[in-house]
Amino acid sequence: MPLERDIVIVGGCAAGMSAAAQARRVDPSARITIYEKGSYISYAPCGIPFFISGEVKRLEDLIHFTPEQFSEQRKVDVKVYHEVRKINVGERTVEVVDLKNSREFKKSFTSLLIATGASPVVPPLPGIDLEGVFSLRSMEDALSLKKYIEDKKPQKAVIVGGGYIGLEMATALRQIGMEVALVEMKEHLLPNLDEEITTIVERECREKGVELFLGESLLGLEGDGKMLRVQTTARKMDCDLVLLALGVRPNVHLAREAGIPLGTTGAIRTKPNQETEIPGIFSAGDCAETRHIVSGKPYWFPLATLANKQGRIAGENMAGGMLLFPGTVGTQTTKVFELEVGITGFSEKEARALGYETASHTTRTSSNPSYYPGAQPITMKMVMDVETRKVLGVQMVGRKGVAKRIDSAAVALHAQMTVDEVAWLDLSYAPPFSPVWDALIHCAQSLRAKTI
Amino acid sequence: MPLERDIVIVGGCAAGMSAAAQARRVDPSARITIYEKGSYISYAPCGIPFFISGEVKRLEDLIHFTPEQFSEQRKVDVKVYHEVRKINVGERTVEVVDLKNSREFKKSFTSLLIATGASPVVPPLPGIDLEGVFSLRSMEDALSLKKYIEDKKPQKAVIVGGGYIGLEMATALRQIGMEVALVEMKEHLLPNLDEEITTIVERECREKGVELFLGESLLGLEGDGKMLRVQTTARKMDCDLVLLALGVRPNVHLAREAGIPLGTTGAIRTKPNQETEIPGIFSAGDCAETRHIVSGKPYWFPLATLANKQGRIAGENMAGGMLLFPGTVGTQTTKVFELEVGITGFSEKEARALGYETASHTTRTSSNPSYYPGAQPITMKMVMDVETRKVLGVQMVGRKGVAKRIDSAAVALHAQMTVDEVAWLDLSYAPPFSPVWDALIHCAQSLRAKTI
Repeated sequence: MPLERDIVIVGGCAAGMSAAAQARRVDPSARITIYEKGSYISYAPCGIPFFISGEVKRLEDLIHFTPEQFSEQRKVDVKVYHEVRKINVGERTVEVVDLKNSREFKKSFTSLLIATGASPVVPPLPGIDLEGVFSLRSMEDALSLKKYIEDKKPQKAVIVGGGYIGLEMATALRQIGMEVALVEMKEHLLPNLDEEITTIVERECREKGVELFLGESLLGLEGDGKMLRVQTTARKMDCDLVLLALGVRPNVHLAREAGIPLGTTGAIRTKPNQETEIPGIFSAGDCAETRHIVSGKPYWFPLATLANKQGRIAGENMAGGMLLFPGTVGTQTTKVFELEVGITGFSEKEARALGYETASHTTRTSSNPSYYPGAQPITMKMVMDVETRKVLGVQMVGRKGVAKRIDSAAVALHAQMTVDEVAWLDLSYAPPFSPVWDALIHCAQSLRAKTI
Repeated sequence: MPLERDIVIVGGCAAGMSAAAQARRVDPSARITIYEKGSYISYAPCGIPFFISGEVKRLEDLIHFTPEQFSEQRKVDVKVYHEVRKINVGERTVEVVDLKNSREFKKSFTSLLIATGASPVVPPLPGIDLEGVFSLRSMEDALSLKKYIEDKKPQKAVIVGGGYIGLEMATALRQIGMEVALVEMKEHLLPNLDEEITTIVERECREKGVELFLGESLLGLEGDGKMLRVQTTARKMDCDLVLLALGVRPNVHLAREAGIPLGTTGAIRTKPNQETEIPGIFSAGDCAETRHIVSGKPYWFPLATLANKQGRIAGENMAGGMLLFPGTVGTQTTKVFELEVGITGFSEKEARALGYETASHTTRTSSNPSYYPGAQPITMKMVMDVETRKVLGVQMVGRKGVAKRIDSAAVALHAQMTVDEVAWLDLSYAPPFSPVWDALIHCAQSLRAKTI
């Protein structure tokens, strides 16, 4: 008799849906059930800033599948408004609440995926629940913010947090004509990056009319029903919209309560096959820890690229396969007004915090040969490990040709190349796309020359 | 007493100039002499099509250094209009003709670089020397063609050869309003690439008004002083401008006469330090053979990226260093009208001709998520070696985001990655730049799935 798999997936965003799709490809006869406590599945939260700016017209455009489409096309039982409240590791069941019908039931599984994602950090400060104060993570959040903007026509926003979401939202809100102030606790925007890069991002923000208040923390909010008053460690500001972009934390409550071990990063510990320490229970996406290929150490970063890949691997393995996730090199890109920002691997400050003895070089080269119309400067910083000469990370910023250039560096990190190897890479050249020495090899050549 | 190096470089384009600059960096006291038989040094021939189209306004914009600038800034003796006629390997001298003063002299060297480049193939056909028939390689060629276009205002061009130069010139001549017909001997444009890619390039050319005559060869030309008549194997065509773009051959005469061995490709055989078989005599650039990293075999391809790198390595080593050139993965990009075309490694037909048993997959993905404004399709073909599962090559075509994406594949080829490794690369994602599964990993995932 063939094995009858009963696969249960908790969470219907990137990791959960990737897992379901892959499990179905691998095992056409498995029973697959997805429980999602919200109403949306299979959507692209990274597109939300472009919905707020109006570049993406309809929120539905961010949805790959409705529950009905996915259920029908993939023969997967998709249950929205269903919250998994408990995992019973010993009896291999989950306890589920049907939120619409207030019905509770148990569901058994042969394998389980915890893909519970992450939630925005919302500090318990005075006034944090006032009307006009938003976080931005779910489709529901996006709809609430859009409706508030359309109904209340706010004039001035204060964004708290200078990471990717904060900056993408500053861009979006300026595009729709709002005044924007941004408060960041650290001394620089994108505080994990090095100053050679972040000062350029700060200049761009200021030139585009964003007031920056760096090195300030939010203390609380007051509101009179019309205006909001933001109190930071240094000032009071009036506004009519506050966006909290203070990062996210992995949703590990369900796993922790079930006795499933967490890792050193606070996210759910996983093996390279995405299995937790409990056989048959997997985890993937923003709730799961992964491995950083450069350091070889546990690492957690909530990124859609990781969630999709980990989900696919978990799905393959829950359906009887054996795929291993090699880990991440921490590649990230964002667009801040006209600037493209990219990083892969570690910044110099991150590398030093990890104990590396580093050397680095920053070059200002060009997207194209200087004679070619539209050539734009690219600032690139490369960080190396002095002991092994391996590249530890690359950061880039510029108005053109940055995002996909960082990928070449990402592949070099996957291959654990030395700066001496990167210096001679055979990268493409044609005047419409690149100078003859691409920014990456130019930077590696300079770093090589100064460290031999 | 310190060693007094007397470095002589034959040829003042990319390889020669890179070598001179690097030798000077490494040895501040070496005597360095460059002999260039033409009047220009240190220019970017790849920019010529953009000068013809008018995108680059002045030919001088393509020049990095005049002989005077380079002589003064780098303390290098640059001799233009000086042709090296003979290399005396035994006595370590070159015989030089000062073309302006018709003076001949001998010059001794401690090390020599042969950077004589390549010359356009001009078949000995009837009428090939007629006025209005051009090749395009040197700055002088560019000036002659530009002057002819300005003076004679030709209406219709026939381009012979459907490689990179032929297509870039078809683009340029259409941009300035000429009618363009293109004759290619093989059945497809860019005949080294596979048809999944070249048919898209052909469609673009036809849509942009280029008449294509594929599978036809040039037999000869007739002219009456006003019009030119082109005779191919299939038709006669009248026009008033003919551009020969039949590729180039390495200039190896000087080396061969001196008894310096050539390689199996017909170019000058070099070791990884860019030395020929004769100690102290180096070669770099379009006249020199190199090694293909994917096949491990000798390879010749005339590309500015290779010339610059090989020149820098030769310069380092002529000045006492020891750098090795790892070889090429054959990365090439070009822009054909609005299309970006990129290749790295081997096409499937090339790989099969080399004896590989191949598998391949072609995907049509997108530059951006489908919901993001301006998303453009990308067609990508990946070829793998069935025995080792290593990627042998990647070809791409699309209107956006192709050229620098091919670089990620190039780095993967440097690292000799398998398709299974490429499938999980941590490439950048943000809606303005990429879908969450980048074209490269999407294609690798599909190829992996169909070959496991």
